[in-house]
Amino acid sequence: MKKALLKNYAELLVKMGVNVQKGQELNVYASIDQVPLVTEVVKWAYKVGAKKVNVEWGCQEVSKLHYKYRTLETLSTVENWEVEKMKHRVEALPARLLIVSDDPDGMKGVDQKKIAMSRRATYPIMKPFIDQIENKEQWCIAGASSSKWAKKVFPHLSKSKAVEALWDAIFTSSRVDGHAIENWEKHNDNLTKKCDYLNSLKLKELRYTSSNGTNLKVGLIENAVFMGGNEKALGSNIIFNPNIPSEEIFTTPKKGLAEGIVYSAKPLSYQGQLIENFSVRFENGKAVEVKAEKGEELLKEMISMDETAGYLGEVALIAYDSPINNTGLLFFETLYDENASCHLALGRGFSNCIKDYEKYTKEEIDEMGINDSMIHVDFMIGSKDMSIVGITSSGEEIQIFKDGNWAF
Amino acid sequence: MKKALLKNYAELLVKMGVNVQKGQELNVYASIDQVPLVTEVVKWAYKVGAKKVNVEWGCQEVSKLHYKYRTLETLSTVENWEVEKMKHRVEALPARLLIVSDDPDGMKGVDQKKIAMSRRATYPIMKPFIDQIENKEQWCIAGASSSKWAKKVFPHLSKSKAVEALWDAIFTSSRVDGHAIENWEKHNDNLTKKCDYLNSLKLKELRYTSSNGTNLKVGLIENAVFMGGNEKALGSNIIFNPNIPSEEIFTTPKKGLAEGIVYSAKPLSYQGQLIENFSVRFENGKAVEVKAEKGEELLKEMISMDETAGYLGEVALIAYDSPINNTGLLFFETLYDENASCHLALGRGFSNCIKDYEKYTKEEIDEMGINDSMIHVDFMIGSKDMSIVGITSSGEEIQIFKDGNWAF
Repeated sequence: MKKALLKNYAELLVKMGVNVQKGQELNVYASIDQVPLVTEVVKWAYKVGAKKVNVEWGCQEVSKLHYKYRTLETLSTVENWEVEKMKHRVEALPARLLIVSDDPDGMKGVDQKKIAMSRRATYPIMKPFIDQIENKEQWCIAGASSSKWAKKVFPHLSKSKAVEALWDAIFTSSRVDGHAIENWEKHNDNLTKKCDYLNSLKLKELRYTSSNGTNLKVGLIENAVFMGGNEKALGSNIIFNPNIPSEEIFTTPKKGLAEGIVYSAKPLSYQGQLIENFSVRFENGKAVEVKAEKGEELLKEMISMDETAGYLGEVALIAYDSPINNTGLLFFETLYDENASCHLALGRGFSNCIKDYEKYTKEEIDEMGINDSMIHVDFMIGSKDMSIVGITSSGEEIQIFKDGNWAF
Repeated sequence: MKKALLKNYAELLVKMGVNVQKGQELNVYASIDQVPLVTEVVKWAYKVGAKKVNVEWGCQEVSKLHYKYRTLETLSTVENWEVEKMKHRVEALPARLLIVSDDPDGMKGVDQKKIAMSRRATYPIMKPFIDQIENKEQWCIAGASSSKWAKKVFPHLSKSKAVEALWDAIFTSSRVDGHAIENWEKHNDNLTKKCDYLNSLKLKELRYTSSNGTNLKVGLIENAVFMGGNEKALGSNIIFNPNIPSEEIFTTPKKGLAEGIVYSAKPLSYQGQLIENFSVRFENGKAVEVKAEKGEELLKEMISMDETAGYLGEVALIAYDSPINNTGLLFFETLYDENASCHLALGRGFSNCIKDYEKYTKEEIDEMGINDSMIHVDFMIGSKDMSIVGITSSGEEIQIFKDGNWAF
């Protein structure tokens, strides 16, 4: 990759992504092959005054061995020190930067039931802490090129050329050209304008149709708003950008109000395995039937992770004619593909999409119809000829998307 | 490296090194560039029945940034979860495998006083747990080739050839040739025979002389024994090999009984920086004067880490004509260089060198003259013409080493 752009990217992740503050901790989660990016990130974090940067290195090959050989019992155990570490996260509220670079299909062959069962066992232990942290921490997910992922995106290139090409695609998608921070300031302004217009419409339902068979209605929450780009951490009011790149305008839909069928527009990499060419049929808000040409069992496992995993947690709008989609690339990584296509998410919704959400209790938020689940998995549905019609509170029909793109 | 030898090496580390047991945890500490070796180790550990393998990845470049940018205050803080993690080590007694591969001079330029002060601050917090674990856990230190270390050992080779050459040297030194386990069984038998002979002499003092100026007397403890090769974990009685390679016969000397001067035979890499061509003068058992052509300040810092860092904690005997020394290589890494040269260690002594040590209290052990310190740093003194004379309890003089090699 171009070293100057890598530095500019690291600066973007630190200053605009997590926006780590003087005296604050930063946790960085990265794969062991990302030393060049991580060292630049660590340098920037210290330069802006971070108190301590904790780098937690992961290795997909080793993780695969754990899932293969460990018993369900040991995979389901949370040690006391791990709970204490989580408590530290609640108290210190470190900023968190997750750098994704794994092979999208690198966990192929691993028993997904075992992973699912172990996650189900450990989630309740961590849930009270996750609830306490929600909306309060600055976090950011961003990508980094790696040889296995790059070969998936560019199968016909040599390994080194593929890695370069994926870096280029990451930099382009992330508006990194030596002026990343200025670019993101403008970009965030544009996203805010779109949100303001959509919110002025007071929509109560979205109706999706496409020639691929998609025909779905999704109900919205009266006092939920559409958001996009940067967000504000609760309590500290620190502005951060949770996804780099991010092209989406999204909101949290109303639990129980989804009817019809929707077809995938791109493959989905879930826990290191691919699900391709799939459909999801909803009744009374819940996924009641899923079909997939590849990974159907995995998809079924996913929607039954807990009782609420089959309900929607996000509705996001992105023009088909988007910068990332225009690269013509399929990234096999949700961070990029979700920002190139209208998508939905199954699982947990976003309480911070509710206007003045901080004034409500968790119970009041739940009652408004925001889904709570241990999963939150985006899947891409934005086809070339997708139409989305919004129904306002007064019953008016407004064309939101036409032929895959914004209608206004 | 040759893949078959790497597998044989991993098997050796797991079965003979830490000898991890069915149902036991294993902690592996390795640098982020050691994925091939670590994955083989993890596989072997699970195959022999390890319950859980925890791999903790390190990165010297990132560590350097921490020491450069973090304040002494944050470097001196131990979080509650880190204490809890240490408690888990006390309770679960995981086997521990440390794979060394860092650049021996990779921390050059880092403020050693800052490192030393932060270690002094955190050590007392961890000390009670370290005392509880002592002699009970199975542990092993072994090496792995990396580009920066390899270029230090083989400066005239290309990077890839240097890495190969260092792997070859590691495999040769570690007796890895496809039959590593059988080789180590024989090797341990040979070391035991040497120990038995030395222990039959009932030595109370060793006198070192060499043409390089070394002239040193070191007093021994009456009921301390010489050990070498494998050891037995206290409580579990599991046999393990703490160093791979290991050629040394060693014991713990008597605190307060060291007089004279000793000259280094090889450079010493201490906390990622090199100390070269140095001497240490002892009075009443304590290092009172040190001189070094390179790294003198670092050496001074080292012997003043705490009040007892200037006392000896180990006396080790290795023939000059040893397999590792015969490679003609200088490894700049203590694990290899100490096994190619008679050496001493400054700092903590070994309570398990006392006969039936488990029957004594910590206070009784201390009273016998075993040094306790936060450091334990080996340094190499074995010259080509070194003479070592042992004085028995009856006052007899016995030639132990002559012209650098065993005299018997």
